[in-house]
Amino acid sequence: MAVDLLGGDDAPAVVVDGALRAVRTDPDLHLLLVGPTEVADGLIGALDPEQRARVTVRPVRTVVGMADHPTAARGESTVRAAVHAVRDGFADALVSAGSTGATVTAAALGLGRWTGVRRPALVATLPAVDGPVVLLDVGGTLEPGPATLARHAVLGAAYAAVAHGVTAPRVGLLSVGTEAGKGDRLRRSAAPALAAVPLPCGARYIGLVEGYDVSLGTRADVVVTDGFTGNVLLKAIEGAYAMAGGPPASGGAPRAAALLGVAGTVVVCHGAARPDDVASGIALAAHLWRRGATDTVSTLLDAVPHDPAPDRNDTEVAP
Amino acid sequence: MAVDLLGGDDAPAVVVDGALRAVRTDPDLHLLLVGPTEVADGLIGALDPEQRARVTVRPVRTVVGMADHPTAARGESTVRAAVHAVRDGFADALVSAGSTGATVTAAALGLGRWTGVRRPALVATLPAVDGPVVLLDVGGTLEPGPATLARHAVLGAAYAAVAHGVTAPRVGLLSVGTEAGKGDRLRRSAAPALAAVPLPCGARYIGLVEGYDVSLGTRADVVVTDGFTGNVLLKAIEGAYAMAGGPPASGGAPRAAALLGVAGTVVVCHGAARPDDVASGIALAAHLWRRGATDTVSTLLDAVPHDPAPDRNDTEVAP
Repeated sequence: MAVDLLGGDDAPAVVVDGALRAVRTDPDLHLLLVGPTEVADGLIGALDPEQRARVTVRPVRTVVGMADHPTAARGESTVRAAVHAVRDGFADALVSAGSTGATVTAAALGLGRWTGVRRPALVATLPAVDGPVVLLDVGGTLEPGPATLARHAVLGAAYAAVAHGVTAPRVGLLSVGTEAGKGDRLRRSAAPALAAVPLPCGARYIGLVEGYDVSLGTRADVVVTDGFTGNVLLKAIEGAYAMAGGPPASGGAPRAAALLGVAGTVVVCHGAARPDDVASGIALAAHLWRRGATDTVSTLLDAVPHDPAPDRNDTEVAP
Repeated sequence: MAVDLLGGDDAPAVVVDGALRAVRTDPDLHLLLVGPTEVADGLIGALDPEQRARVTVRPVRTVVGMADHPTAARGESTVRAAVHAVRDGFADALVSAGSTGATVTAAALGLGRWTGVRRPALVATLPAVDGPVVLLDVGGTLEPGPATLARHAVLGAAYAAVAHGVTAPRVGLLSVGTEAGKGDRLRRSAAPALAAVPLPCGARYIGLVEGYDVSLGTRADVVVTDGFTGNVLLKAIEGAYAMAGGPPASGGAPRAAALLGVAGTVVVCHGAARPDDVASGIALAAHLWRRGATDTVSTLLDAVPHDPAPDRNDTEVAP
C-alpha cells in the first residue's frame, strides 16, 4: 500500500500515526511510504524490527515555490509519486488524505480511466440498519449528467456486491420524495436512465429514495447521487452523529472512500482525517485489493453496454 | 390558525391528533379546521367545552373524481381553502402537512409573493451546539440561481434575527469545502453574489460552510443552499438521529418548516408527520404570528436592494 505522507490538513503527523496503527494491526500489510525521508524515518523508528521489514520508503523531495497554497502543492507532488508507484508496480494500491481533487486528477491521469467511465466516482459505505449502504458519488464528480449517474448506478451495484458481498443490491436515486417525477431537472432526466440501464450482480433499480434512506438503509443498498449532494450529505450525517453524542454501535459515517473508475485501487481519506481514519483508509485499500474488487468491478462494468456519447457538461472536482 | 385536515400521508387521523394536542397545550390558540365536517366534528367531540369554544370549522367537501392521486387531490382542495381563509382574514396563519408543492403553489397564488422574492423558500430551524441553525431552502425552490440564493441569504438572516432572536447572524453558503472556489458551478457563481449582498440585522457572510456545519452549527447561524440539497440533507440528519438511537437533548431535525416569501404566515409539516409534528407545526405558526415575524422579515427585505432581473431558469417545486 502506497501511503501519501503529506496528504491531509494535519499531515504528516496524523498520517504517520495512522500508518503505524495499520502496520501494527494487520501483520500481512506492507507499506510504501511516499514523502520526505525524515518523516518516513521517524515512522520507521517507532516500529519493532518485524514491522520495519514491512515498510519501505519512496522519498519525495518537497518543492515549495511560488504556489499560493504550499501545503496543497506539497501534497500534490506526493500523491503523484504514489500514483506512479502503483502504475509502475511498486505498490498495489494507494491511500491519500490529501485534496480529493488532486488525488482524483493524479489517479485519472497516472493510472488511466476504465473504458466507459468518463467520470470517476468516490464511493462511501455507511453502516445502516440492514447492512451497508453504498453512497456514490461523494465528491469525485460534482456535476454529473444523467448518463454519468446511470453509469455510477452500475458501478455502485457492482461495488456493493464485490466489496461488501451484498446479494442482488437494491439501487435507488436520491431525490426529495419517492413518487415518480419528484426532484429537480437532473433527477427527472436521470430516473429513466437508471431504470433503463442493465445492472450487474442481480441488482435492480427501485426508484427514488430520500435522505433517510442514506442513513437508515432500509430501502436501498446503493444510493446514487451527484458528488456535491453526496459530499454535503456524508458530512451532515457525521455532524449529526457528533451532535447525538456519538455514532451508532454499527459505526459512524466513513472518513475514507474508494475511488472507482480509475485503473487501480485508490482510497481517499477525509482531509480532516484523524489517525484512526487513515488507518481505516489503509485497511479499506487492503480489503479491496485482497478481494480484487477494482478489477472485478471493472470487468462487470465492461459487460454492461454504455452510452458512447456521455454527458457533455459534466464538471469534475472543483479547482 | 387554519389547519388543513386532509394534508399528509396519514391524514386526517394524524392531523386531528396533532390539532388536539395543540389546542390542549396552548390556551390562547384558536383553530380553524379546514376539511370535511365529519372529521372536524370528531375532533371537536374530543374536546372539553372551553377548548371547543376555540375551534371553528370551514367545511370543504372533498371531490375525488378522475384524479390519479385521490389523496393528493383532496389535500390540494383543503390547502387552497385554508389559503383563502388566511387571505380573507378568517385566519392569521395556516398549517398543512400536505404536498409541499401544492402548499407552496396555493400560498403563492392565493396570498401573493413578497416584492423582490420570485422564489419562496422553506426554512427549517435545527437545534445545534451554539443555538439554532436556520437552513434554507429545504424544498421550496429546487433549482435556484445565484440571485435567488443571495435573496435567500437575506431572508434567512432576517428570519434568524426575527424568529429566533439571533444577534448578528453569521451566514454561510453550503459547499463541499470551506476554501474559496470550492463547489459546483452554482456555488462558484453564488459565492460572490452572497458576499456582495447587504444583509439585514447586522448579519455577515462568512463564506463557504460544509455539511457538518448544518448539524453542529458552530460556524454559521444561517446556511443557504438549494431546495434539493436542503431537503435531502434534513432527511439524512433525521435518519442519522434515528440510527444513533434518538435525537440529541437539544432536539432533533425539525419536521415543520416556515414558508418565507409569500404574504402570510404559512407552515409546512413533513408529509410523514406524526401528531407531535403537526402540533409543533401549529406551535411554530403561532410563534411566528405572535412575533409578527412574516411582516417584519418582509419589511427588512424591502430595505435591501435586489436584482430586478432575477435568475431566469429557477425551477420551482417538483410537479
